[in-house]
Formats: sequence, C-alpha cells, structure tokens
Amino acid sequence: MARGLIGRTGLVTELKELRELPLPPVELFVFGGHELSGVTVTEAARTFGRRAGLVTDRLLEALSGDLEAAQAEVRPGFPTGPVRSMRGEGRAAPGPRAAVAAIQEDLRSFRERHELSEVVVVNVATTEPLAEPRPEWSSLTALRAALDDDRAEVFPASMLYAYAALEAGLAYVNFTPSVGASVPALDELARARGAVHAGRDGKTGETLVKTALAPLFALRNLKVLAWEGYNMLGNPDGEALRDPKTRGAKTTSKDRSLKSILGDGVGHSSVHIDFVPSLDDWKVAFDYIHFEGFLGAKMAMQFTWQGCDSALAAPLVLDLARLAAFSHARGASGALDHCACFFKDPYGVDVHGFVAQHELLRRWAATQRDSESGGATRARAG
Amino acid sequence: MARGLIGRTGLVTELKELRELPLPPVELFVFGGHELSGVTVTEAARTFGRRAGLVTDRLLEALSGDLEAAQAEVRPGFPTGPVRSMRGEGRAAPGPRAAVAAIQEDLRSFRERHELSEVVVVNVATTEPLAEPRPEWSSLTALRAALDDDRAEVFPASMLYAYAALEAGLAYVNFTPSVGASVPALDELARARGAVHAGRDGKTGETLVKTALAPLFALRNLKVLAWEGYNMLGNPDGEALRDPKTRGAKTTSKDRSLKSILGDGVGHSSVHIDFVPSLDDWKVAFDYIHFEGFLGAKMAMQFTWQGCDSALAAPLVLDLARLAAFSHARGASGALDHCACFFKDPYGVDVHGFVAQHELLRRWAATQRDSESGGATRARAG
Amino acid sequence: MARGLIGRTGLVTELKELRELPLPPVELFVFGGHELSGVTVTEAARTFGRRAGLVTDRLLEALSGDLEAAQAEVRPGFPTGPVRSMRGEGRAAPGPRAAVAAIQEDLRSFRERHELSEVVVVNVATTEPLAEPRPEWSSLTALRAALDDDRAEVFPASMLYAYAALEAGLAYVNFTPSVGASVPALDELARARGAVHAGRDGKTGETLVKTALAPLFALRNLKVLAWEGYNMLGNPDGEALRDPKTRGAKTTSKDRSLKSILGDGVGHSSVHIDFVPSLDDWKVAFDYIHFEGFLGAKMAMQFTWQGCDSALAAPLVLDLARLAAFSHARGASGALDHCACFFKDPYGVDVHGFVAQHELLRRWAATQRDSESGGATRARAG
Amino acid sequence: MARGLIGRTGLVTELKELRELPLPPVELFVFGGHELSGVTVTEAARTFGRRAGLVTDRLLEALSGDLEAAQAEVRPGFPTGPVRSMRGEGRAAPGPRAAVAAIQEDLRSFRERHELSEVVVVNVATTEPLAEPRPEWSSLTALRAALDDDRAEVFPASMLYAYAALEAGLAYVNFTPSVGASVPALDELARARGAVHAGRDGKTGETLVKTALAPLFALRNLKVLAWEGYNMLGNPDGEALRDPKTRGAKTTSKDRSLKSILGDGVGHSSVHIDFVPSLDDWKVAFDYIHFEGFLGAKMAMQFTWQGCDSALAAPLVLDLARLAAFSHARGASGALDHCACFFKDPYGVDVHGFVAQHELLRRWAATQRDSESGGATRARAG
Repeated sequence: MARGLIGRTGLVTELKELRELPLPPVELFVFGGHELSGVTVTEAARTFGRRAGLVTDRLLEALSGDLEAAQAEVRPGFPTGPVRSMRGEGRAAPGPRAAVAAIQEDLRSFRERHELSEVVVVNVATTEPLAEPRPEWSSLTALRAALDDDRAEVFPASMLYAYAALEAGLAYVNFTPSVGASVPALDELARARGAVHAGRDGKTGETLVKTALAPLFALRNLKVLAWEGYNMLGNPDGEALRDPKTRGAKTTSKDRSLKSILGDGVGHSSVHIDFVPSLDDWKVAFDYIHFEGFLGAKMAMQFTWQGCDSALAAPLVLDLARLAAFSHARGASGALDHCACFFKDPYGVDVHGFVAQHELLRRWAATQRDSESGGATRARAG
Repeated sequence: MARGLIGRTGLVTELKELRELPLPPVELFVFGGHELSGVTVTEAARTFGRRAGLVTDRLLEALSGDLEAAQAEVRPGFPTGPVRSMRGEGRAAPGPRAAVAAIQEDLRSFRERHELSEVVVVNVATTEPLAEPRPEWSSLTALRAALDDDRAEVFPASMLYAYAALEAGLAYVNFTPSVGASVPALDELARARGAVHAGRDGKTGETLVKTALAPLFALRNLKVLAWEGYNMLGNPDGEALRDPKTRGAKTTSKDRSLKSILGDGVGHSSVHIDFVPSLDDWKVAFDYIHFEGFLGAKMAMQFTWQGCDSALAAPLVLDLARLAAFSHARGASGALDHCACFFKDPYGVDVHGFVAQHELLRRWAATQRDSESGGATRARAG
Repeated sequence: MARGLIGRTGLVTELKELRELPLPPVELFVFGGHELSGVTVTEAARTFGRRAGLVTDRLLEALSGDLEAAQAEVRPGFPTGPVRSMRGEGRAAPGPRAAVAAIQEDLRSFRERHELSEVVVVNVATTEPLAEPRPEWSSLTALRAALDDDRAEVFPASMLYAYAALEAGLAYVNFTPSVGASVPALDELARARGAVHAGRDGKTGETLVKTALAPLFALRNLKVLAWEGYNMLGNPDGEALRDPKTRGAKTTSKDRSLKSILGDGVGHSSVHIDFVPSLDDWKVAFDYIHFEGFLGAKMAMQFTWQGCDSALAAPLVLDLARLAAFSHARGASGALDHCACFFKDPYGVDVHGFVAQHELLRRWAATQRDSESGGATRARAG
Repeated sequence: MARGLIGRTGLVTELKELRELPLPPVELFVFGGHELSGVTVTEAARTFGRRAGLVTDRLLEALSGDLEAAQAEVRPGFPTGPVRSMRGEGRAAPGPRAAVAAIQEDLRSFRERHELSEVVVVNVATTEPLAEPRPEWSSLTALRAALDDDRAEVFPASMLYAYAALEAGLAYVNFTPSVGASVPALDELARARGAVHAGRDGKTGETLVKTALAPLFALRNLKVLAWEGYNMLGNPDGEALRDPKTRGAKTTSKDRSLKSILGDGVGHSSVHIDFVPSLDDWKVAFDYIHFEGFLGAKMAMQFTWQGCDSALAAPLVLDLARLAAFSHARGASGALDHCACFFKDPYGVDVHGFVAQHELLRRWAATQRDSESGGATRARAG
C-alpha cells in the first residue's frame, strides 16, 4: 500500500468521515513483532499467497526487501498457549516478571532504533484457550502483587504483552479473543500510565453480519426464536479451534453480541466452529434465523458469508494501529470506546449494533476535527 | 389485538422507545375503506387464513361481528389501475373532480358517524402501473388547475385519494409503490391544509434486509461489485407484478435504497420479481452480494428471506395509523420524516440505512416525550 | 387416506411402477402398537396438528373414532432407552426372555382379534443410544443362548421387538437408527422362520438429498474436498439427540451413505444435529459441499432443506408396511433388499445412491408383475 | 495434461468404468479450429488465467509452444450470429454452399497435415440466437435442396459446421445450445455418411444439479409446486445472453430436462439468466424448489451452485472428443445415445435424469469392453 502496489479497499480509516483526520499514514509504519512458530514473514506471505490466491509471485518479489526488513525486527515469542508446529526454539520459558521485562526491552530498542514517535502493540497471535477469570484481574494492585510474586498461573501469554505495552505507556490492541487487556486491572494500568488499549476479537465475518442484522429484528419488534450459526474455517485459526477450550473462547465472544442486541428475547442460539482444511484462508458462515411476527407467523432468514479471513482482518489491523497511535498522541488514555465497531466484544462499551458502533467512531472523528485548530502533528508510528 | 386475542409482536410502536408516547390505542380504532374488487373483509380474512395458515377458524368466528362492522364501512372504490377479478361493479368512472368530491364525502360521513377526532387514509391497494412523472405534479397551482379542468390523465387513482384526504386536512399514508402523495404538489397541499402524509412503499422484506445490510459494506469500505435480488411472491400482489409496468414501479422503488446507501460504488445491481402461485401469502427473496475487499479479494454473501407478506405489513399499517394520527393531533403538517424507517422510498428523506432511519423515529419520540408537560390527549382515531 | 380425506402424495407405492402390483390397500390396515410415553394417539395427532399446522380440527374430528380404535390396540412398551416425560408407568422391566414372550403374546392376540393375514411390526420409537456391537449379535446360536440366559445387556429394546416379530415369523421394519434387526443373528433368524425384515433409519431429509446429489460428483469425477452437514430439529427426536450417545447413532448412520458413494475421495465430512425447539416438527438441513474440478478449481455447492419430518416419514411407513406384507405373503424371507431406497443404512445392500436404490425397487416390481399369472391375493394386513 | 502438468480431475473418461476402454489418449490430440473474434489461443488462456485465477504465469509459459502450435491451426470463422468485439476481419460472408466447402477444405488439410486417423469437430462457440425451426431441417433431401439453392436463411452458422463435418464422414459434437446437428436432416446425413454426432448444450452446472435432484422428488412421489432457477454469469457467454433471443435458446434448453423428469407435475417453473460482470468465469446458480408432501405439507429446498464454467466444461469437451473418435473408429454412425449424460438436451434420447443417463454410458462401455477380443486400435485423433 505504501508503495502504491495495492489499493485501500477495506480500510475504515479511508472512509470520508475519517480521511480528513491527520492519522499517521501507513507510509511511515515500521513493522516488527514477536513470533513463536519460527515461520518467517516471507514464508507466511508466500503460504497465504498460495492458499488464498491473492498475493501473486510478482507482488512477493516486489516486496521481498520489505518483508526481510520486517523479519529482521521479529523476536522470538514466549512459548505459552496452544501453538502448534513450532519450528524455532523460543526463549526458555521465563516467569511472568522476566517475560514482561524482556518484551519491554524489545519494544524500547525497536522504538529507539527507528526513532518512532508511537509504538502500537497488536495481538494477532493464535487464540489462547479460554481461561477462567481470576480475582487478581480485578485490580491493578492485586495484579502487580501477582507479578511481583512471579505467579505464572495468573498471566495468560496475551496478558503479558498487554501488561508490558501498557506499563511502558504504549498503545495496545487485541485483535484476538484472548484476554489481553480486557480486564479492569489492565484498564487501570493504562489510565495510570497514559496508555491506550482497544479490543477484543476483530469483527470480520459472521459476527459483523450478525450485528448488522440483529437490529432489524429488534427494531421491527420481531421475536427471534432461534439464531443458529455454523462457521467453517480452513486456516490455522480453525485448526486451533478444534481444541474445545480454545473454541470456547471464540464462541463465547461471538455469542455475546447477539444477546446484547436482542436481549432475553432470543429463544435459542448457538455458535459452531468447524475446521474444514480445504477452505484454506476462506471462511464460510451459515446462519439460520427463525423468528416470529404478527399473528404468531413463524418466518425464517438464512445467510451464507464467504470471506477471506486475512483479507478482511488485515486492513482493520492497519486502521486500529492508525487510530490507536493518533488517539494516544492526542492524549487519550484507557480503553478507546470509539473503536468498538472493530470488535466482537468491545471492552467497556455495551453498544453491539454495528451501525450504532460506527456512529461512535464517526462522532469521535467529528470531535477530533473540531478540536483541531493548528498544531496537527503527523507522528511517525511503528 | 383490541380484544386481547393476539399479541403485539411486529408493532414498532410497542417498542420501549415509543411505548411511552400517548399514541392512540388500537382499541379506539374504527375501520372502513374503499374497495374495488367486491371481496368482503370477511372473505379476505378467510382466504388469508387458508393461504397463510395464520388465521384459525376460531379466530374468524370470534371476530365475525367486527369484520362485518368494518365491511359496513366499506364503500366502492374507483375503477382505475390494474385491478383483476373485479366482482362488484364499482361506481361509474367519474372525472377526477367528482372522484375527489365523492371520496371526501365518504370520509366526512365516516368521521361524523363515529365521532372520530382523527381519520387516517392508508393506501394498501394493489400497486398501480408505473406512471411517467408529469409537470403538473410539481406545483400545487398546476395540479389544482388540472383538477379544475378534470384532466383524468394527470391523476393516477392513488393520487385522487391522497388529494381528497390532504385537502380535507386529514392524514394520508401510502403503503404501496403507487404515486399517492409522493410529489411536491401534494406535499405543498398538505402543508397548506395542516395535513400530514407518509410514504411510500412499506418496507417489509427484501428491502428491509438490504437497508440493514448495505451499511455493513459501506462502513467497512468494501466495494460492492454486484447485488442481485430475486423475489418470489404468491399473492395477488405478485400476480399484478406480472405486468411489466407494475413491476417497474416496484423494482424502481426497491433499487433506490441500495444506490442511496452505497453510492456509485455498486458495480451491478438488479431486482427481479416473479409470481410463484404456490407460495400464497409467503414471499421468498434471495439476494447475492459480490464484494471486493483488501488485496482485491472477491468475496460473496447471500441471503434468503422467507416471510409472510401480510403478517409483516399489517402491524406496520397499525403503527403508521397511530403515528400519523398522533403527529397530526400534535400539530405536524407535511411529510412525516420520522416515519422514514417504514418505507422503501421515504418521501423527502435521503436516509435509507435502516438503523439510521429508526434513529430518526427514536429521536422524534424523545422530543415528543420531552415536550409533554401535562395535557396529553388520547385521541379517538379512525 | 382410507376415508378419502387426504391424498396419496408422498407414497412411493403409488408411483406408476408400483401401482400395478396387488399390494395390500391401506383401506384394510388395522393399527396398534406399543407405547411407553403414555401419550395417546389422539393427543399425539392433536400435538402434531398444532405444531406442524397440517392436521386441522376438522380432520381430527372426522378421525376421532379411528384414533380411538387405534388407541384401544396400544399396549404399554418396555421402559428401556432414553425416553423422557414418561407419563404411564410401563410394565415393570422384565428380563429379555419375558419381554419377548409378552410382545409375541400381544402380536398374536392382535392378529387373532382382527383376523389379519399379515402383521408388520414397525419400529418408529425414539432413537436408542448407540450401543457397542456385541459378539452375540453375530450368530443366532449365540444370541439365543444370551436370551436363554436372560442377559439384558445383550438386548437393546429395539432388538427385543425385532426378535419377537421375526421369531413369530412376521414382518419387521426398523424406521429408526436403533439396532433392531440389523445384525447377522436376526437376519439368520428371519431366514430360519420365513420372516422378512427391512431397515434401518428412514431416509427422509438431508441424507435423501445427499444420496441423490453425491453421485453427481462421483460420476463427473469431481473431487469432494469437504461435505459439512448441519441439521436443526425441533421435535422430540431432536430433543433426544441432545444426548451425545443417541446423536452418535444418528450421525454415524447419516455419514455412512456419503462414504459409500464417494469412497475415500472425501477430504473431510461431518454431520451435526442440533435441537432448535421453535422448529417444532420441521427440520432444516444446511449442507456445504466444497469440491475440486479441472485445473484444481475449488468450487462450492450448498443446499438448504426445510421439511416436515413427520409428513415425510409417514407415507414411507405405509409404503414399507405394504411392501413388507406383500413380500412376506409372496414367500420372501430375510432382508428385503428391494426396500434399500427407504433407508439411510440399508441392511445387507451396499447401494447408497438414491436413484440406483430406487432402480432395485423398480426391477423387483417388474419381476413381481411378470411372475403374476393368476392367483394374486390381496391380503388383509395389520 | 499430456505434459503431466495438471491432473485429470473432472474427466468422466477417467472413471473406472471407462478407463479400461482403449480410448484415444489426450497425448495424441492435435488442436485446431475456426475463430471469428481474432483473439488468439494464448490471449484467451491468459485472459482466463487472470479472470478465474486457475492458470498461473508458470503454466502459461510452459505451454507457450503448444498454444502457438494450436494457434497456427486456427482459421478464420464465418461472421454470423451475435459475435461481439470482432477483431479480425473474418472471411467475406459467403453463401452456405461456399462456407461448407471452405470448412471441409480446412478440415481435410488439417487432417492430412497431421496424418490423423480421426477428426472431431466440436462447437464451443458463443450461443446463436434461437432460430425458429424450419421445414427444411426435417429431411435431408429438403436440406440439400436448400444448400444447392444457397438459401442462407435456412442455415444458422452452427449448422454449416455440422453439415460440413458430417458430410465429410467425421465426428461432430455440439457443446452449445445452438442448433448444430440436432435436427432430423443432419442425423440422416450422419447415418448416410457413416459419421457420428453428439449434442447439445454441455451440462455443467445448474441443469446438472437439477437433473440429479429432480428424480428425488419424482421417485418419492412429492409434488413439485415450483422450481425457480436464477443464474448469474460473468463471462462473454453471459454477455451474449443479454440478447433475449440468445437467452431464449439457453433457457429453453435448460427447462426441458425438468419437464421431462417431473412430467406435468410441475406447478410452475422458470429459468433466469443474468450477466453479472464481476463474476468473470464463475457462475452462480440459485434454485428454489417448492414442493408438497403428505397431508398437503408445503416444503422447500434451495441450492446455490458456484462453479467455474470453463473448468467444468473443458474436461467434458476432452471426454466427448475421446468418446466420439472412439465410437466412430468402432463403426458407429448417427447420434451417440451413450453420450446423453454430457448434455442438457441430448438429441434423440428421452432420458434426462443424470444418474440414468450415466447408466447408458456405463452400459455402453461394458458392451464395448465385452466386444473386444484383440485388435484394439489406438487411433491418432485430432
């Protein structure tokens, strides 16, 4: 995109209502990260190209230097969670205290090396197994105590990265259903350190459609008798979801939106996720909605969504990086409510209808435009 | 409903945000009308019961007195438009001037007979063939001149009823794709006479879904390459639509919403309507949406909607009668912008996204609640 | 049907190729049975009428005498298997030996009371939990020994009825996925006693479509990458299937056909069944088929089937009763191969393609017609 | 395929039941043809690669020599029918007599140049407008007289090629809905000249599914109330179908199969075809089937087929070339009934059910295998 090789379709920040804000341009982005699997950025791009048919050999060639540059900024991650086919050795599993310190050191050195004004940490790792909420997650004091005591059982891997980023005063985005920063203790941390966070679980497919459609039934006073959702995935995400605990994290997050929009009125609902290897990076969702109208008439609607998971997610990750960097630079702290439309399970916002969520973003953008009088700064963000 | 025999599912005015307004209760409604086909109210209810399976013999029996009372208030209509299987003879086709006078006389006598505080005229007749817009429709002066000259070619039947109602200072609602009051001249008439109007073309099925879904693509910056809609109908409406001119009226109205939400971005779109007799009162819509995302990924969504047309429409007709009567009693005049969410092609409002349209209604309701300080009057409306 | 109140749509035995055989007419049928739940025939019909909207009050009234007559021939069943909401007390659970004897006594007295030339026992009970195959099922000698020893763990309830019927030299049909007579020992018994049997698991919906469609892929040499089937049921059958063991019996039976037609070529396949109460007697199946063609092109087909379970099953039960009685009267014994088209999992026949299965029936009918030279006997069958 | 670069998925002649016949191997095929549009074989392959994403740059490169060799054997066609974007000049439109002579000369020289034992002419051109049947098509004598008189109005372009091939004693296959050899006069010609023909209209998508599914309803004695088919195409074929006359040729051919399988029992049926440019070489069909079962239960099935048109058609063209060459070499003449399964509208065969059609092919293959005793000849076919 920065090189003008592909267009900007799919980027929310390129919509008219956001384009006028001085968001950091993707041209200034520097990419790095933590990776556990040992697969390089170039290999991942090549695999995606082969599986989804969207990245041609020509494009890969034109980007080979950029992909290598990004790879040079990739550090080994920490071996927790359901990661398969691990090729590299990872770092020897440290306690949470050491892990947080190591992540922060990686972030600091990345920032200095590239002289970045903003660093945004985005969780796009494979989903963690669903963890039971812990009392320590409720207050920063308790969580800090657990960290000081190096109690590993309190910290899912996703939370370590969130903690590291927020304590360092940086921006953190959680695009997965893993816990990340979606607990009061980390929100408190963000506010205390002038950091921002947004999450969780990027809304790219079935739930996106659900939250666009469910208000139709609510606002026409139609009674939803049943909403059954069947998802088929072919990528490693789908494979990880064969583990019932991981799947639990995902389906819980997917189901919450519906309940929130339709209230107790839903007679029956369920969300299934199946791994169908031949689909590769494609995702097929079939939803059946049974509803009742006037005179007790039972009616039905069904939809099928066939989307390329990565092509739907990638532009939103760029959007969130731009919005988080910008919000942080403008002095925001804590959860970014205006980013609710990007997530299946937006932290701290009880607005789930998609149009209503976007309205939060649009209004925020209007406020930001109004508050500009002169010194708009275009930050170099990484 | 007034007798407590059926519930209120499907009524928008029973939603929390509207329930608190002192809208005229359906218990006070008196029903009458004009009918061209000679089919009685009881016969129509019985046929609907048999076709849609929703009205039991028991319900028909319990309502036999009410249906007969309504039938007693039915007057012959005026034989224009594509009306089939006409059993009664209708009135001898008069010129527009005489027709308007006769309709007004019917309305006046209906109102007096029942001592009604409000009368709402609702067009639920079979769709007229699509008429080419005429210059006389642009200004009240020109239209009045055409009426004085008794120029029949200027006045589709639907417009005669609209004219009669609005000139008499009453409320007029157009639930069909026919012209009705959806021209500047009649809006001018409404304003001049302190009358209100709302229309046109009740949004009950495919277009309802379209206008709930299309914002998803717009707000995610996804490019809609094609949106193909196929509708199958089994009731007399479907039969009338076999006439290409009538179908034209309908498909034009259905397509407009999409264009308005997605702008010029839609590569290709079409709307088909077929008459499939075995469906009876049921309506099946299949829509295929082809869209492009990041990296040029071509993705697809499809939905099927299976609804009972009359069960979806009936509660909205009650809603509109309540809202029009209430608005008129509160002193409104001209087009009722807050009723946009009920229509495929809302007059004078360029908001087509369904959630955004409902927001207009919600905000209006909030204003109405705020402006209440004491003297809320529950009107007797017919 | 016997009274001319409803038509014969859905009866396979009314097809041209079968109509010419002197099958026992439904007019001569006498109905009886064993029931565990305590629900009467009339109650069941009324409930079905209310849930599926197909049996009107008028029809129930016209049949009240017949339903009561059938009810008079209903005997309490034996309390085994996952039967819920049992209202009656059942007989005190006897050992298998006593149960077989009691069932046979019921059958004998039923037959004598009505002077029936043929009696067909049809299993239409709720599906049993999937039982692990037992060595005793493999030979009649071993099974008889287990019965003599009264070893209850060897005999699922469905097998007791099958044993009782076949040993008495009668016809037995298993319309459920339960074991019934689908084991070598019972086939041996049938042959030894001049009895006939047919089963198992009536093919009424998703599997019917699957076995009609799968040959398309096989015969066009298209590679099926994935075939995912999702079933939603609302009736008590669906409720029983919430028990994973019961569901196992069903999905195994549903999946077998596909494997048989497509061989090892299927990359991935699964069958899901969900209980969706609002569907009542309706069944919705959604299947997604991912397949590969020339040049590695990945293509997809999907279908949705919305059927009334009982309305699809009932005529097939009549068909099977007619065919089993006729075949038995004509001297057949053992499994009725020509009835394979009625079952998801036909015993002893490895033809699963639906058209090919029907061809077995058509050819059998041709043979039967040819072999008729005079003495066609119309049996009185119960 | 001949070079081992792609597999044989999608070829019917590679099924077990046909693989054992000594059909001419694709390795011996030589390709040539007539083309009107001026687009070269290489350009067409490149365009298809870009549009359908199935032909990679690498494959095109590996085949560049082969494509050029094929192009060297392409001769200009005759400018008739609805051909758009014609780039070459074509030959000056000759009368039918001269056209037939010229085509025959092209075929003769092609055959000699490559020393081919068999030549198969396959019509894969854009569909012609539907022509009214003419009396001259009914007898060879009448058709010959019309040719002698050079009466152009008697000969659609497709018929000229068919006439030329058959009169030269060659094999002719019509993969399009155009007339080709599907008239008695040309069948007579084939028989007289020891030539073979097969057609018409390759069955690759919606009709394939229809003819696999329709027997399900017929053989279960379910009454089809309505079968509505909606097709969306993006390739030049779809564009040509915007012409209502061309579309007529196609929809007639598609509808015939259904009527044949279901008889007069179909309450309502229709076939729509729309041009949806963004689909490129992909074809989406949506069919809605409304049917009635026992107790008058109205049920529904729907399916969506998403296929790559060319990837579905190409292997069948190879199959037909192999089968036609083989049948001809074995001494067949006239219509090849055993090829009915390849066509929507098989000439002279009233078997439309797909499985039953394939059975004709399987049985023929069995006969051919049995009749082999020694001298199987592998012909060099072009």
